[in-house]
Amino acid sequence: MNSIDINCDLGESYGQFKKGNDDAVFPYISSCNIACGFHGGDPYHMEKTIERAIKHKVQIGAHPSYPDLAGFGRRKIDIPAEELKSQIKYQIAALKGMAESKGAKMNYVKAHGALYNEIAHNSKEAEVFLQAVKEIDPRLAIMGLAGSPFQEQAQKAGFKFIREGFLDRRYLENGKLMSRKEKGSVLESVDESFKQLKLITEEHAVKTSSGRNIPLEIDSLCIHGDNPLAEEILKTIISNSNIEIKAFSI
Amino acid sequence: MNSIDINCDLGESYGQFKKGNDDAVFPYISSCNIACGFHGGDPYHMEKTIERAIKHKVQIGAHPSYPDLAGFGRRKIDIPAEELKSQIKYQIAALKGMAESKGAKMNYVKAHGALYNEIAHNSKEAEVFLQAVKEIDPRLAIMGLAGSPFQEQAQKAGFKFIREGFLDRRYLENGKLMSRKEKGSVLESVDESFKQLKLITEEHAVKTSSGRNIPLEIDSLCIHGDNPLAEEILKTIISNSNIEIKAFSI
Amino acid sequence: MNSIDINCDLGESYGQFKKGNDDAVFPYISSCNIACGFHGGDPYHMEKTIERAIKHKVQIGAHPSYPDLAGFGRRKIDIPAEELKSQIKYQIAALKGMAESKGAKMNYVKAHGALYNEIAHNSKEAEVFLQAVKEIDPRLAIMGLAGSPFQEQAQKAGFKFIREGFLDRRYLENGKLMSRKEKGSVLESVDESFKQLKLITEEHAVKTSSGRNIPLEIDSLCIHGDNPLAEEILKTIISNSNIEIKAFSI
Amino acid sequence: MNSIDINCDLGESYGQFKKGNDDAVFPYISSCNIACGFHGGDPYHMEKTIERAIKHKVQIGAHPSYPDLAGFGRRKIDIPAEELKSQIKYQIAALKGMAESKGAKMNYVKAHGALYNEIAHNSKEAEVFLQAVKEIDPRLAIMGLAGSPFQEQAQKAGFKFIREGFLDRRYLENGKLMSRKEKGSVLESVDESFKQLKLITEEHAVKTSSGRNIPLEIDSLCIHGDNPLAEEILKTIISNSNIEIKAFSI
Repeated sequence: MNSIDINCDLGESYGQFKKGNDDAVFPYISSCNIACGFHGGDPYHMEKTIERAIKHKVQIGAHPSYPDLAGFGRRKIDIPAEELKSQIKYQIAALKGMAESKGAKMNYVKAHGALYNEIAHNSKEAEVFLQAVKEIDPRLAIMGLAGSPFQEQAQKAGFKFIREGFLDRRYLENGKLMSRKEKGSVLESVDESFKQLKLITEEHAVKTSSGRNIPLEIDSLCIHGDNPLAEEILKTIISNSNIEIKAFSI
Repeated sequence: MNSIDINCDLGESYGQFKKGNDDAVFPYISSCNIACGFHGGDPYHMEKTIERAIKHKVQIGAHPSYPDLAGFGRRKIDIPAEELKSQIKYQIAALKGMAESKGAKMNYVKAHGALYNEIAHNSKEAEVFLQAVKEIDPRLAIMGLAGSPFQEQAQKAGFKFIREGFLDRRYLENGKLMSRKEKGSVLESVDESFKQLKLITEEHAVKTSSGRNIPLEIDSLCIHGDNPLAEEILKTIISNSNIEIKAFSI
Repeated sequence: MNSIDINCDLGESYGQFKKGNDDAVFPYISSCNIACGFHGGDPYHMEKTIERAIKHKVQIGAHPSYPDLAGFGRRKIDIPAEELKSQIKYQIAALKGMAESKGAKMNYVKAHGALYNEIAHNSKEAEVFLQAVKEIDPRLAIMGLAGSPFQEQAQKAGFKFIREGFLDRRYLENGKLMSRKEKGSVLESVDESFKQLKLITEEHAVKTSSGRNIPLEIDSLCIHGDNPLAEEILKTIISNSNIEIKAFSI
Repeated sequence: MNSIDINCDLGESYGQFKKGNDDAVFPYISSCNIACGFHGGDPYHMEKTIERAIKHKVQIGAHPSYPDLAGFGRRKIDIPAEELKSQIKYQIAALKGMAESKGAKMNYVKAHGALYNEIAHNSKEAEVFLQAVKEIDPRLAIMGLAGSPFQEQAQKAGFKFIREGFLDRRYLENGKLMSRKEKGSVLESVDESFKQLKLITEEHAVKTSSGRNIPLEIDSLCIHGDNPLAEEILKTIISNSNIEIKAFSI
């Protein structure tokens, strides 16, 4: 690979509660997933984040979640399909309209937290998600876990699917991410993240928690904005690799 | 007048908390102001209300509010201008996108509760509101208190302004509405509301709390969905007047 | 049985969103489970409900829930044990202090909605619930599903357990309640509820959805305040049975 | 003065949203005002903060607020008196019960943010606040702005009043605090805060924004936990003054 998209979850601050370090990563990334107010983010922070994305020429995606500010969207909530579909549409539509009001375009949708994990492997919940996106705009790309059942489901439904891998999370043998509740789930050095990048981009593989390499084909790599090493990892990539950081094309 | 627009605030239920009697009034009205989730309404009820509006061929408007579910948007909250603007944009954009996803069009915006009253007479807050609407879509019409300073302000800003009067609220000498906190602020009989309609449509005037008639030019009349007499008032208008209930044109 | 406790979930209104018909049932019941603000209720409605309970000499219990206003506490949320425990304590403590401020006493705790169902059969979640109550006051009684595993668990933990049955819900063969999502889960006539009462109080049994009688020993019967027949059912009991409605003793 | 109470607003984190630097200041302060969930704080963080207060032998007070998570309690909300009273009681009761469940005692109440400022000078709102505290427990002390009309009002109502001054905020000529919206409202060096402490404790005076000294009699000094200099200021006081940091007595 000559270039890679690097995406980051941003705009997650809520009122006076600051979250993440958006300013530090914006100069380096190529796509940003903007919180839509359900797990973090509020209309003001959404708008400010859209403005920063425009300034840094970073591609904009919506980052809808279960309605769970108290749990930061990391808890599965058992919501009836029809209600969940409306909630996802609401979030996407709000961000889309706000981006367009600034002359920007929202190009894709990536689910957040528990919703991301749920749709990766639960085809019923995934169907609700895909239907929601389709009703807002079927030309939107969908970003999701590379190699998951969701990938195939979204592609069959006619969506452009952005296969996502992770720069700072550890993989299991089955290709899933190690749960955040477990120790070692987050890579804790710049070096480890850089090695993960090299392996993914050069050999289309990733090393799992058991030490074995498994194949991994991706279109975008996620780095977490609240990872204290984020800025340094991104600088290391830029200085020490021949990979250009560049938004995926729609 | 041969025809009159009658608008109603709808879609204000929240989860299991039912509010208003939307089904009873939908067959009779010509425009509906749909709650956007900040004072009532939730994404699911918004979507169901959009579907009902389409079914009954009722024109759709957004009904944004201060963020105040606990107070049903009836309390003034002192929010910095930039934040309030983003909040209004978020609400309008969400409803707009959801309406368009159903093939419908959102034609206008009417503020709710304390925000409605505030912008009617506070030009600074009104400026924030108008700017929010303009950034989403300057062709949206704005519905507001007929004869208020806001009317002139919105028209000067280039908006089509829908002058709103009230079928079931009592007016003061100065053209403002009597506060809901005061006794007699809501007309309590079908007959009184019908007389108010006749006076407004035939003589372009309204009787105030002191018994005097003052001039009132309107484009739309509001009836409240939680008024237990709403359905009967609407039926009376249809049976006993020559006024056709018909959406204002954009 | 000569007397029976009849309890009702009350104080579930939130701001301008009215829920249930508290005034209609208060004169007839002997215990009330007061919402604590997490699924419904707000501090003002809690306080007003305490006042009504005092006026009608109705025993007071706390009715804590998962934090889920949007879903009225009817959705399971996957909350870490330590956080859930704190949330339950918070709710109980708030109601307890408010009741005491009026010179009343809060005597028991009954979980609401999804939390009620979860602890009835999930011993881990039940353990969290019992620990929360114990830390606030181990002398509080616990009301829960009669015959459930939770009954034994609470009793072993040293609590006085109030075995609860339902006047207006249908039972399954296994002693559980039929899910609200299924048709026929709520008894739809005064006559059916009255028969259920007679069977429970005279024969210590209940008829299940399949028509068979199963044994049921209870200390309190629940009637739902939002059941439109509630008032009529209660009047029928008072007029047509020799059972006195009387609070269980602590 | 030989000793001074130093208080800090703590426990303001909400879910995954961290706020303040509680661990850094807990070893040095003598009283803590614990958020009660309405402007920040959640039941879990409340409980953890109570545990830390016990561990560090820091006196516990409740820190109730307007219901305003989105605005961190810094916005005046126009809430009817009866509702506001219930909201304050709810918050105090919840913290009180949780503290007692850990064997600790809640000794005082200090309003937060906009509510603090409002009651300092608005006797009607202050009356609501005092009545709420009285109904929960009239022996609770009340902490409020030293020299404000509220001081006299609370004392007349029979409360022990803790006169509060500020280590890191600038005073105006009239004894009020400079608004946070204005530049210079927060002292920006350790040295300035230390001088303010010396002047207050040695000369019972404070230097205002215009450079003049005005008298100031206090029982407790507040330092803000989100002040990045907080830890250094506290260490400086301990190393460089003869003042002992010690909780006020009840």
